[in-house]
Amino acid sequence: MEKETAAVARNRKVVLRGYIDRAPREDDMELVDGGDVALRVPEGAAAAGPAVLVKNLYLSCDPYMRSRMRDFQGSYIPPFKPGSPIEGFGVGRVVDSTHPGFSAGDFVSGMTGWEDYSLITKPEQLRKIQQSDIPLSYHLGLLGMPGFTAYVGFYEICSPKKGEFVFVSAASGAVGQIVGQLAKLHGCYVVGSAGTNQKVELLKEKFGFDAAFNYKEEPDLAAALKRYFPEGIDIYFENVGGPILDAVLLNMRVHGRIAVCGMVSQHGVTAPAGIHNLFSLISKRIDMKGFIQSDYLHLFPQFVDDITKHYRDGKIVYVEDMSVGLESGPAAFVGLFSGKNVGKQVVRVSQD
Amino acid sequence: MEKETAAVARNRKVVLRGYIDRAPREDDMELVDGGDVALRVPEGAAAAGPAVLVKNLYLSCDPYMRSRMRDFQGSYIPPFKPGSPIEGFGVGRVVDSTHPGFSAGDFVSGMTGWEDYSLITKPEQLRKIQQSDIPLSYHLGLLGMPGFTAYVGFYEICSPKKGEFVFVSAASGAVGQIVGQLAKLHGCYVVGSAGTNQKVELLKEKFGFDAAFNYKEEPDLAAALKRYFPEGIDIYFENVGGPILDAVLLNMRVHGRIAVCGMVSQHGVTAPAGIHNLFSLISKRIDMKGFIQSDYLHLFPQFVDDITKHYRDGKIVYVEDMSVGLESGPAAFVGLFSGKNVGKQVVRVSQD
Repeated sequence: MEKETAAVARNRKVVLRGYIDRAPREDDMELVDGGDVALRVPEGAAAAGPAVLVKNLYLSCDPYMRSRMRDFQGSYIPPFKPGSPIEGFGVGRVVDSTHPGFSAGDFVSGMTGWEDYSLITKPEQLRKIQQSDIPLSYHLGLLGMPGFTAYVGFYEICSPKKGEFVFVSAASGAVGQIVGQLAKLHGCYVVGSAGTNQKVELLKEKFGFDAAFNYKEEPDLAAALKRYFPEGIDIYFENVGGPILDAVLLNMRVHGRIAVCGMVSQHGVTAPAGIHNLFSLISKRIDMKGFIQSDYLHLFPQFVDDITKHYRDGKIVYVEDMSVGLESGPAAFVGLFSGKNVGKQVVRVSQD
Repeated sequence: MEKETAAVARNRKVVLRGYIDRAPREDDMELVDGGDVALRVPEGAAAAGPAVLVKNLYLSCDPYMRSRMRDFQGSYIPPFKPGSPIEGFGVGRVVDSTHPGFSAGDFVSGMTGWEDYSLITKPEQLRKIQQSDIPLSYHLGLLGMPGFTAYVGFYEICSPKKGEFVFVSAASGAVGQIVGQLAKLHGCYVVGSAGTNQKVELLKEKFGFDAAFNYKEEPDLAAALKRYFPEGIDIYFENVGGPILDAVLLNMRVHGRIAVCGMVSQHGVTAPAGIHNLFSLISKRIDMKGFIQSDYLHLFPQFVDDITKHYRDGKIVYVEDMSVGLESGPAAFVGLFSGKNVGKQVVRVSQD
């Protein structure tokens, strides 16, 4: 009965200060006092259509958000608005709703703002979460966009076959850790790369990769891949771009597949690193395919069923890097681009 | 009755002098006197299995041959042997045969040597040519490997739909001119690029492209493509690599396809130009696929039927650049890499 007992609350926001064309820095964002917010859907908003007022609990830090900090309209998603809160996936609790599908107290995931309370004027994009043994924040990772990206990318783009040789870059990240575990469940041989020895250990000990290496300790990446894949790579799940992709191209097998998911090493770069070995696409007849999970939303229910079952059966684990407090959001986000995060980066705004 | 009347003939050869790791030059090859050749299958060769002695009439100059001049064993086709004749596709007349499928006087196409007479010890790779109204040399182009490359690349790799926007680079070349005409027949809008104004005219006047431009006269290739494709490119048939590919990546439409066929601009280059815009693969969900025609040989009979019919119906034309004399082979081949050839480059060794 929040409507009666707490008519207003203080709202803080993390806003974008202005567009950038380089790797993001903490001071590109700013925590501002958003004043009081009435804990109900305002009458004006309600008149424009159903709306939901959400208390944000967990916010997701995802590399693609970097592209919304540029003043570029030509992408599949528009840029952020300077002075307005950063937008991203989040998990929240419904405070008030004029949409018949949502009631106060419901837990939801979907696009929200980096603030304590968000008024969601397109509630049809929200998903209701059934609370269970699965941590709420996992709906931003294992059961959210990154997990679905891994699922779609591996099964729909990579066309995996049992026994194939799979390489995953940024392998301990939000997407990579799931790709590797799905590939193992599929009967593939899986090697991952990461940027610290701690992450390499995680890949081998926690996620069950067959092998893993620290790419920063390999002066010759092509030679390293040759060592881990003497017979070559059938499937490369591409999360980073740059020199690793070039080295992979020299080590692919005939009829190999490359699922191009992210190029996080190139996100902050005005002049992205050149890729020099694309001639391998011809000699090895490689299919290199970019994809975005939102093209495959018809598979989402199946994904949730499959992954939930694997998780409950103990066949998939998930590692998160939780940063505490809305004010920690900018640093957490910026850390993605230097690989500071260990596992899926989320920001806990509130526990209730 | 050549066996009786001309027991021997003089054989000349064009041999590779040594391996190179740069763009080929004329003096990387040498015309040498191969001495007399007996105009029959030698008894020793016959004992090892069926063989065919061929008088070479036409030889094909193809960009992929450049890769066989490198000392690199890891490709899909082994390097040439220094001191031995260059190998390539050719059309010839059978002089003698111990293979039941071929008789003296038959016209054949297949892998042969750059010399007057070649002993083919794997005659199963030869194709018998039915002489017809179609010029013999077209079996190296329109009805040969380049034509089949165009056919397979367009129909199997590009998944074309009527009304789509198609861009072809090196569009007046052996492959490009056929891709463009097939795309027109399929109901697509087709633009080609080439390196001289003469070739641009050819594309528009002879091959029926909707538009064409000289890439050397465009300081900003991305802007040029934007002009020719204001709504973007659905299909790019990639023959060149380098800066044109980078400009195309910025102009692709969502769910576009890139058939990677050749990267002739990169063939002679030790450090290939970097491609910087692969992030478009993700935002535009592009499928970029390398292919080699020999993976699709089951489609060859259908290809010959289809293209022969189009040719006889006047729906497809073909332009060759014919260089005369075996001795002209090295210059003709080297010219490919600076775009000297207008249309498919062949070498006429003999007319009979």
